[in-house]
Amino acid sequence: MLSQRLRNVALQERVVTAEEACSWIHDSMTLGLSGFTSAGDVKVIPKVLVERVKREGKPFKVNVYTGASINSEIDGLLAEANIVNMRLPYQSEKRMRGRINEGNVNYMDQHLSHTAELLRSGAIPPVDIAIVEAISITEEGHIVPSTSVGNSHIFLSQAKEIIVELNVAQPLALEGVHDIYDPGHQGSRQPIPLTQVGQRVGTTAIAVDPAKIRGIVVTDQPDVNSAIVPPDEETEIMAQHLLNFLKDEVAAGRLGPNLAPLQSGVGSVANAVFHGFLSSDFKDLEVYSEVLQDSVFELLDADKIKVASGCSFTLSPKKNEEVMSNLNKYKDKLVLRPQELSNNPGLIRRLGLIAINTALEVDIYGNVNSTHVMGTQMMNGIGGSGDFARNARLTFFCTKSYAKNGKISSIVPMVSHVDHTEHDVDIIVTEQGLADLRGLSPRERAKRIIENCAHPSYRPQLLEYFEEALQRGGHTPHVIEKALSWHGKYVNEGTMLAG
Amino acid sequence: MLSQRLRNVALQERVVTAEEACSWIHDSMTLGLSGFTSAGDVKVIPKVLVERVKREGKPFKVNVYTGASINSEIDGLLAEANIVNMRLPYQSEKRMRGRINEGNVNYMDQHLSHTAELLRSGAIPPVDIAIVEAISITEEGHIVPSTSVGNSHIFLSQAKEIIVELNVAQPLALEGVHDIYDPGHQGSRQPIPLTQVGQRVGTTAIAVDPAKIRGIVVTDQPDVNSAIVPPDEETEIMAQHLLNFLKDEVAAGRLGPNLAPLQSGVGSVANAVFHGFLSSDFKDLEVYSEVLQDSVFELLDADKIKVASGCSFTLSPKKNEEVMSNLNKYKDKLVLRPQELSNNPGLIRRLGLIAINTALEVDIYGNVNSTHVMGTQMMNGIGGSGDFARNARLTFFCTKSYAKNGKISSIVPMVSHVDHTEHDVDIIVTEQGLADLRGLSPRERAKRIIENCAHPSYRPQLLEYFEEALQRGGHTPHVIEKALSWHGKYVNEGTMLAG
Repeated sequence: MLSQRLRNVALQERVVTAEEACSWIHDSMTLGLSGFTSAGDVKVIPKVLVERVKREGKPFKVNVYTGASINSEIDGLLAEANIVNMRLPYQSEKRMRGRINEGNVNYMDQHLSHTAELLRSGAIPPVDIAIVEAISITEEGHIVPSTSVGNSHIFLSQAKEIIVELNVAQPLALEGVHDIYDPGHQGSRQPIPLTQVGQRVGTTAIAVDPAKIRGIVVTDQPDVNSAIVPPDEETEIMAQHLLNFLKDEVAAGRLGPNLAPLQSGVGSVANAVFHGFLSSDFKDLEVYSEVLQDSVFELLDADKIKVASGCSFTLSPKKNEEVMSNLNKYKDKLVLRPQELSNNPGLIRRLGLIAINTALEVDIYGNVNSTHVMGTQMMNGIGGSGDFARNARLTFFCTKSYAKNGKISSIVPMVSHVDHTEHDVDIIVTEQGLADLRGLSPRERAKRIIENCAHPSYRPQLLEYFEEALQRGGHTPHVIEKALSWHGKYVNEGTMLAG
Repeated sequence: MLSQRLRNVALQERVVTAEEACSWIHDSMTLGLSGFTSAGDVKVIPKVLVERVKREGKPFKVNVYTGASINSEIDGLLAEANIVNMRLPYQSEKRMRGRINEGNVNYMDQHLSHTAELLRSGAIPPVDIAIVEAISITEEGHIVPSTSVGNSHIFLSQAKEIIVELNVAQPLALEGVHDIYDPGHQGSRQPIPLTQVGQRVGTTAIAVDPAKIRGIVVTDQPDVNSAIVPPDEETEIMAQHLLNFLKDEVAAGRLGPNLAPLQSGVGSVANAVFHGFLSSDFKDLEVYSEVLQDSVFELLDADKIKVASGCSFTLSPKKNEEVMSNLNKYKDKLVLRPQELSNNPGLIRRLGLIAINTALEVDIYGNVNSTHVMGTQMMNGIGGSGDFARNARLTFFCTKSYAKNGKISSIVPMVSHVDHTEHDVDIIVTEQGLADLRGLSPRERAKRIIENCAHPSYRPQLLEYFEEALQRGGHTPHVIEKALSWHGKYVNEGTMLAG
């Protein structure tokens, strides 16, 4: 059986235990781990490493690079054991977040398309050991990733040594889904030839020098899939606003009936929107996104989507089982690419995507905070939202208009941290309504966002601020000493609500 | 003589007076004017238009789109006459700035590579009349731009009607310098084939349907060139910091001896840096920038630069005369492209540029404000800085550490407006020193920026703020109610200096 998975005969000699592979990892090393939104992440070696370090009781810190978030069992264990020096480019784990916010882990919150370039240019410490999950190793010794590609190709090409977790619980039928393309070094690269969502421009396995593969650990643990938050009344209303807007764009002739390739962030709003497509008249849709979630497969089943490209699957346990045991049904409609391609600025612009992402808070001028609660506490990270927002044809940001039972307004005078500037944001959606900011100056935007998107209980306060700011003038009027007073009030009094 | 400039015989019938051409412009129209950094702008029709509107005394407003800034005689007259409704994507004129800041002109401050896409997708009102300066019209009726390309190709392709200012004061020898390439519609475009700075991928004239050319006005006014601010002691020190850093990068093997294609914003720091190259050991340099300034030609003369690509020349009067009368000497080393190519995210990343731009203020975490004085008053606009900063291989932002005789610190706890987020900024340079932020978490960045870049008179204040923020914790520590207090203090007391 293993010979199907490990087809390079010479490499069969390199099968080792996780304990042995772990013994190659030393203090101060930089590790490049596969994994993107808890899919295709390495599952065994980090755990064994934590056990070893605890057992040895010696000072030990490593840098941990991944594609994006990895399953919480791993990021949580690494955080608890306190063995991470630098972590990049994204995480979404409670304990890791805690370490980051206490200043214990040096977290680099990066655009997800940037990490590969930073490694190529030597801007961040190089990867010593790449540890990646694979479904198989080919006759040539090339590595076939599993349910995500993420940054694995760059980790593998840059690392001095490679450890493979060969996971027999991931279906071998995934072979052929991947499209691996490395653009090469800046300054000497060719144009990436991709012009169609479903086009394949690379190889189905990651080419590596087999001599670098120091060890292969056979594993059999499935991805730790997280339940998808089902749409609630408010996310369904937001989805409806967004779908109505798209219908109007088609009616106005600004979009064709099959829209444009869709990108959506992870989360309940994006899911609600995609569910909304099921009962819509749109068809022949295309998805060019980071993450392919449950709803993408439902839309494939319903013949609404004709092709979907991403760098990772993120499925609920039930959907995962269904998809993985019926891969042949989907195979010719799916492509998994490196994240520097799924999130590539040039490709996003060339294809003209519609990008739908989630905001933490939005200000009256259209600046978006995606990451920092009250301007200081890291939630997860910017992820790919910046790659898409800046370069898409249409950029939506969605958020409920309030949080914490109304103690927080998601529409504020000035955001406490900026991830997406006013230059990059086209449309704001809340359960209250939608604000189309295209072609509007800041003062016009403020009126529209307050009227269409703010919660009624905060509208008078926002208008009052805006009126006072207008007295001072300026292209972007502010009462600068009060611009962040709502956040200050929340920090000190537990509410943003006046009076 | 005119037959050399206007080579399409049928179009010779369409030569009209500026007054007649102006009579075609009506209230509520959208005008697309050529012009980028006061080069290649239309010089006669806007003036005649302003005179006509004053004479008629009827309500009259138009939208004015350009490449970037146009000469102040035009933008200033338009602002004074108060006939502009919407202005985009950039301006740098005192009177226009005044109108914008009083809320009288709806200004859309855009990434300079975005305007063409916004027009194609119908996100902003379409251009009714394109009015562009040309050095000639070819046998086919195609238009050869003058000293800038900017957005002219998209204005010409989208406009219902075209008026050409055929400027005989611009040298005919410019023919052959331009490289016009239109990527086409998103979703159906091919990869832009450019892989080398000096490569030509398009045509030397802008193809238009000659039937759309309603009138041709012959003019003979030179570009209004502005004097370049010469380097002072502090900008020379900043340039030295930057050049030393580049030398160290070469020594560390992260850059080759000819560096990487250089981009620089307009201004005295950029000029000082480029002057610094004159006496450096670097050679075979390449420039891939928006604007080609005096120093580029000095470096060409000194054989330091082998090729330079931009979308505009911005020269001092003396240098302009010198260059324009010796064009054949430079011609095979120069390319002028549309700004959506000079500033194209995909190309910037493919070529791996070194981007050098100017900040208005920088915060301790590396966020940059390029546009808004005290968070509210628009200075000029973001221009192309975002196109370059986000996608370059190395992104520098330069600023003197203080302004207004020390009453303002350019390094602040939190910037009052964000144009470039922490994710997009690699290196900060002031006359005090250079902070390399690559691979640093926010807390590490804060220390380095305060120590290396802040003016000594503000360092204790910054450290005090940072220490207090650290007590509160967070990935990006802030004392949120004090984060903008420096700006508040300046607005109310005229200084940021404590005590």
